Amino acid sequence: MKIIKDSVHDHIQVDGVARELLDTPELQRLRRISQLGTVSLVYPSANHTRFEHSLGVYHLACEALEQLAVDGRRAERVRAAAMLHDVGHGPFSHNIESLTHRRTGRYHDDVHELLADGAVGDVLRDHGLEPAAVADLVAGEGRFGQLVSGELDVDRMDYLVRDAHHTGVPYGTIDHGRLVRELTFVDGELVLDEGNVQTAESLLVARALMNPTVYSHSVARISKAMLRRASERLLESPATDLEAETLQRMDDHDLIAALRSCDETAAFSRRLDHRDLFKRAVWAEMDDVPGGIIEADHGTIREFEREISDRAGVDPDHVILDVPSRPSMTESTTRVMVNGEIRRLGQQSPLVDALRAAQYSQWRLGVYSPPDLRERIGRTAVDVLGLDIDGALVTEVRDGRDATLDQFVD
Amino acid sequence: MKIIKDSVHDHIQVDGVARELLDTPELQRLRRISQLGTVSLVYPSANHTRFEHSLGVYHLACEALEQLAVDGRRAERVRAAAMLHDVGHGPFSHNIESLTHRRTGRYHDDVHELLADGAVGDVLRDHGLEPAAVADLVAGEGRFGQLVSGELDVDRMDYLVRDAHHTGVPYGTIDHGRLVRELTFVDGELVLDEGNVQTAESLLVARALMNPTVYSHSVARISKAMLRRASERLLESPATDLEAETLQRMDDHDLIAALRSCDETAAFSRRLDHRDLFKRAVWAEMDDVPGGIIEADHGTIREFEREISDRAGVDPDHVILDVPSRPSMTESTTRVMVNGEIRRLGQQSPLVDALRAAQYSQWRLGVYSPPDLRERIGRTAVDVLGLDIDGALVTEVRDGRDATLDQFVD
Amino acid sequence: MKIIKDSVHDHIQVDGVARELLDTPELQRLRRISQLGTVSLVYPSANHTRFEHSLGVYHLACEALEQLAVDGRRAERVRAAAMLHDVGHGPFSHNIESLTHRRTGRYHDDVHELLADGAVGDVLRDHGLEPAAVADLVAGEGRFGQLVSGELDVDRMDYLVRDAHHTGVPYGTIDHGRLVRELTFVDGELVLDEGNVQTAESLLVARALMNPTVYSHSVARISKAMLRRASERLLESPATDLEAETLQRMDDHDLIAALRSCDETAAFSRRLDHRDLFKRAVWAEMDDVPGGIIEADHGTIREFEREISDRAGVDPDHVILDVPSRPSMTESTTRVMVNGEIRRLGQQSPLVDALRAAQYSQWRLGVYSPPDLRERIGRTAVDVLGLDIDGALVTEVRDGRDATLDQFVD
Amino acid sequence: MKIIKDSVHDHIQVDGVARELLDTPELQRLRRISQLGTVSLVYPSANHTRFEHSLGVYHLACEALEQLAVDGRRAERVRAAAMLHDVGHGPFSHNIESLTHRRTGRYHDDVHELLADGAVGDVLRDHGLEPAAVADLVAGEGRFGQLVSGELDVDRMDYLVRDAHHTGVPYGTIDHGRLVRELTFVDGELVLDEGNVQTAESLLVARALMNPTVYSHSVARISKAMLRRASERLLESPATDLEAETLQRMDDHDLIAALRSCDETAAFSRRLDHRDLFKRAVWAEMDDVPGGIIEADHGTIREFEREISDRAGVDPDHVILDVPSRPSMTESTTRVMVNGEIRRLGQQSPLVDALRAAQYSQWRLGVYSPPDLRERIGRTAVDVLGLDIDGALVTEVRDGRDATLDQFVD
Repeated sequence: MKIIKDSVHDHIQVDGVARELLDTPELQRLRRISQLGTVSLVYPSANHTRFEHSLGVYHLACEALEQLAVDGRRAERVRAAAMLHDVGHGPFSHNIESLTHRRTGRYHDDVHELLADGAVGDVLRDHGLEPAAVADLVAGEGRFGQLVSGELDVDRMDYLVRDAHHTGVPYGTIDHGRLVRELTFVDGELVLDEGNVQTAESLLVARALMNPTVYSHSVARISKAMLRRASERLLESPATDLEAETLQRMDDHDLIAALRSCDETAAFSRRLDHRDLFKRAVWAEMDDVPGGIIEADHGTIREFEREISDRAGVDPDHVILDVPSRPSMTESTTRVMVNGEIRRLGQQSPLVDALRAAQYSQWRLGVYSPPDLRERIGRTAVDVLGLDIDGALVTEVRDGRDATLDQFVD
Repeated sequence: MKIIKDSVHDHIQVDGVARELLDTPELQRLRRISQLGTVSLVYPSANHTRFEHSLGVYHLACEALEQLAVDGRRAERVRAAAMLHDVGHGPFSHNIESLTHRRTGRYHDDVHELLADGAVGDVLRDHGLEPAAVADLVAGEGRFGQLVSGELDVDRMDYLVRDAHHTGVPYGTIDHGRLVRELTFVDGELVLDEGNVQTAESLLVARALMNPTVYSHSVARISKAMLRRASERLLESPATDLEAETLQRMDDHDLIAALRSCDETAAFSRRLDHRDLFKRAVWAEMDDVPGGIIEADHGTIREFEREISDRAGVDPDHVILDVPSRPSMTESTTRVMVNGEIRRLGQQSPLVDALRAAQYSQWRLGVYSPPDLRERIGRTAVDVLGLDIDGALVTEVRDGRDATLDQFVD
Repeated sequence: MKIIKDSVHDHIQVDGVARELLDTPELQRLRRISQLGTVSLVYPSANHTRFEHSLGVYHLACEALEQLAVDGRRAERVRAAAMLHDVGHGPFSHNIESLTHRRTGRYHDDVHELLADGAVGDVLRDHGLEPAAVADLVAGEGRFGQLVSGELDVDRMDYLVRDAHHTGVPYGTIDHGRLVRELTFVDGELVLDEGNVQTAESLLVARALMNPTVYSHSVARISKAMLRRASERLLESPATDLEAETLQRMDDHDLIAALRSCDETAAFSRRLDHRDLFKRAVWAEMDDVPGGIIEADHGTIREFEREISDRAGVDPDHVILDVPSRPSMTESTTRVMVNGEIRRLGQQSPLVDALRAAQYSQWRLGVYSPPDLRERIGRTAVDVLGLDIDGALVTEVRDGRDATLDQFVD
Repeated sequence: MKIIKDSVHDHIQVDGVARELLDTPELQRLRRISQLGTVSLVYPSANHTRFEHSLGVYHLACEALEQLAVDGRRAERVRAAAMLHDVGHGPFSHNIESLTHRRTGRYHDDVHELLADGAVGDVLRDHGLEPAAVADLVAGEGRFGQLVSGELDVDRMDYLVRDAHHTGVPYGTIDHGRLVRELTFVDGELVLDEGNVQTAESLLVARALMNPTVYSHSVARISKAMLRRASERLLESPATDLEAETLQRMDDHDLIAALRSCDETAAFSRRLDHRDLFKRAVWAEMDDVPGGIIEADHGTIREFEREISDRAGVDPDHVILDVPSRPSMTESTTRVMVNGEIRRLGQQSPLVDALRAAQYSQWRLGVYSPPDLRERIGRTAVDVLGLDIDGALVTEVRDGRDATLDQFVD
């Protein structure tokens, strides 16, 4: 048994299979993967890691299992899945995963392999757990998969509180103790017990407020886009001969070191190190963007970028087109007991539709460029992309402030 | 200059007129007025007072004035108003104010008198401040009245954070630092600066979640209704010969002592002391309640109660009919700058309508009675009030849990 | 089972005998006994009560029992004792207990009676617990008595953290989670396990710093002395015919109401209400005080006061002589395992002697009086008491600041 | 003007010269230097950086200057020094500084150069500040140097609170607001005003408790010693041709990458990455250690290590001898006003000597080795070093727990 002091949950007691998983290289690697990637360029205290988050998720899973009166091997499997749920993350967490997943063409298999192989697989099997069964839980499958990865999962409960603690933005401070205590199984479904519509709404609202303020802060988006572009260049560089699979297994140190030493990426690396970031040349509401661009695949996006840089007569690496995917709201399907029946939160709470509408109203396409090229690239991009806004607006918007904390903005 | 240590804002520096107002009996009395009244019967840590809240409001007003670059006598007037804004509160804060206001027939004049008379009036005049002008600010009038009592007032900012701190319910933990920093005046209106739709929404959401969980928790409502009924009896008692004006100037100790020593109220007092509370005999959605009852004045409500107790053959003091007024949402008119123009939050954010709908869906009529009389009184009340629910529902509902923390609910 | 939300420990789960004890009038009364009495005149947020503290002590006792693997009736007895440990407290907690104990001549028997009688006795017996055995634990007797009332008791762990939370003074913020986890029994003694000398020291240091800053802040001492004197007058008043036993069973409201309505005490009551407090006329290091005064009993102290008021020609109620008893340091006997043997902290840690010396250096005799009489009463008191300081010093000291936060000190 | 959200001080306002210093590569580099180095291997949440700490120190300096009523260029100089005070730190903060300082043979000149050169020098001169004058402040020289680097500096105030926040160990939670408010200048000396002996003691005690629990936790010491040894090997490696000056200017990523890719250090790097650490083979009280070893210089220590590895017949890199320097207690010279005169805390408070004694009693020599070689290396080391303990003790000690949290200790 091991007691670990955590800045969020205070003492975390680690036992059984989790105790041995802790010592595997796969889990120790998470100490060197930052939880929020480039968000620390906006909120300088946000340097927490996937390792402490994994401990927190494990801790909440233990509490939930106790509440649900689940024990034995079934519980041990869930605890292992909670501890391991982020083991597949690449460097800088979500920042470059779209890139590596596109390249490797898989996500799900990856976790299955990771859990079956190496030290993790050995530990799981030593404790009588089938790696594939644990991987299924990580993927949200089965009855208990909902607890690890679903609308009411302990992953979300931990990250909201932890990200609030480390950024200083209080919106994520949910009542996780209450959420865990009110979990119950009804007809094989994980639900919040009677009297918890508010509790469910509070989780929804927390994420809805953290999203624009933290996770999608414009400066975090810009620096993430720069990091992603740099990583793509790294994979394309003939000098490095790097596979996407290898990149995905790196830690933050490896990736930074690789970006610094590769000719094609050194400039991006220097910009990120010095916080000498691109700025928004275009920041357009999606209503003003043609559907073809919104639905475009990565190849098409790259072509648009090239067309913009060609027409503007600038270095191709000076144009980044950032088209975030359609907003989603997992929490809308949260199940809550109301008057003795299971209801989806989306049926029950008017907040769900309102927050979805709010998310859509914040959904923006961005074109980023070095500050001194904003004007030129912005005008060209509006033209190339066929945006429904006039040139003047681009200028105005880039001088404005978006719906987020203006820390370090511009 | 005085430095006061506060559990919410840490060190509060009190200066000038506020420094001398602190020592007046009117302000010292607020030490003995609990901030949340009977809510402490649900959340046992919620024993904070109007005094510490007044200090907090004063502190945030100072920060806002600095941000707005306001100084001189105008600022001093606002600081005095912030410190004094609750000086008119009766015992147990809002718990019995509907009663005393109905009896005395005035609220606004009351504050004007309080601020003009006694030690407070002397201090204000000594500092060259006109009591009436300060009272106007307390009433929310004039340009700076919005800061003291309006959609964006520092009163709300302090109480949300303070009530969260003391109840342990995190929903009220707003980012008051950001709110205060983003205040600005545009065309004489207090607005949140560009880029703060989210900030405004966070305030709205905090109150929307605190409301059912804390302020209108069913047990807090029940005990508040009992306290109000007892106070009404006290005023009616021939033995006490008590005026509503006098009651309104009491502190919590006075009222408790009076209730204990008066024959007509001793039973209520004992129940409140022992937390031997009434329970819900009826808990009806307002959709099922005839409009005549929703709009009924106090006299009519009392008649309904008497009819219920008569028909059920119980002591008139064993029936309490609690019809809360229509939900309001002051924050909907919060002004935010969006693309260079002032917009009302209600125009801008889909959350406003959704939260208003949510408030309406939580709006409930209650009939409260001693536990052993619930069945009988519940059935009679449904009948007398012409509620659109069958008798069975009353029984079911009272065994259920409402949309609130089930602390002590039973 | 009941879940209660606490501002310090978050969710507290109350079960078994404790669940039923909660509903007794004896325990509900603690909602109306402030934890720190007149300390709230220095730290305005310190309005917490013995009720929430009792819940906290119960909560830590449950955690400690789990850690010590104690269950069954023995554990239930400890949990009951933890919940009930403060049930004998009079109004304003420790503020007037020296008075009532002197008058009633007993403390220990009192708890035994309280636990045997009334609703509490019934509940205990219903759960198969002997009230006398529970009372013994409250008195710190027996193996588990150490946990309820001893050097390492959960009472101290809760109050330090809770008082820090509510005053805003961080010194009491100990690591109670670690303290509870490291408890163990060795040879029937409750000890901290190997490797915890620091942990034990941290508890000692927390109290040593909270003491002068909070518990013995000069303004808290003055107002406590005024309250004690007023209560003594109340007992002596022929009009009230009040017994010390009755006074001890009052709550804060009762005492305040009694003080307000009694002619002999109305002036004190008004002063306390308006925070129009006495000031220090003398503030003398104990080295300068004759031994006879330090060891004097209450009657002698009263005679000194009368002599001072006679000679100074002032109202006897305008002179209060406050001689605190010799500093103690319970924690010095804390048992810690060091290299496999039980050691007393006092043997092991040089901090114990140093903190004891520090306590002695802060030990002060005070004479308090209305501000305008300080000079006259101060000089007379120095004379009457034979203090080894010259008149000038008295004047200087009263203009100085003592070794505490200067909140409201003036 | 820039507002930055910090997890400790909430909003930090950055202005003037500090605003421009923020954007220099020298300051941005501190984002990639962890504040506590290998301590995160004990406390997994302790991933905060020198950058956020520098912001915090700057923030407290601003508050102190306001309190001291200092403004103009003199204040601007102090603010620049506060922001820049850690700009000279090498990778992993203090972990390898003894190594690089020994190699480069200088510390003080280094800061002078750093501040005069590059972007920092330009910014300082642009704001009319002489880099040398700022560097003097960083070195603690002159009247205001005490505020930046002295017994009462804002550096210490920030790191104690910040390290407590991020490790979760509450001992460092001092009342920095009070400390800053009580600063004053008397006869050109920075002192704490009258009535603050306790305040000064609280700072002393906080560091005394954080020291063994956090900063010198045995596992942090072991991993730090491994990192230092690895870095030394890196400098010695003919393949890298690395200068100590270059190493000192690296960030954490650079050093990790270098250690991974160098043959001589890859094994250490793997051990640190996998948390597969050396263990204590010897853990001796300094009373049992010959004076010659305590005073030995680095070369002599290396010779002892070689002799131990030779005699034990193990790889030289499997023996690390860790002899920490004599405990110091800067705070003992803190100046406090007592009865109108300046006193040193060491004269005034018995705690100073007690804490010094406590530090000495925790002072330990360690010999670290791979777990399977502990027995052999431990016995040989006792012999070679002439320690006054028998072989059995070595075995016993390594099974025991030292006076620290036993996190990960094994």
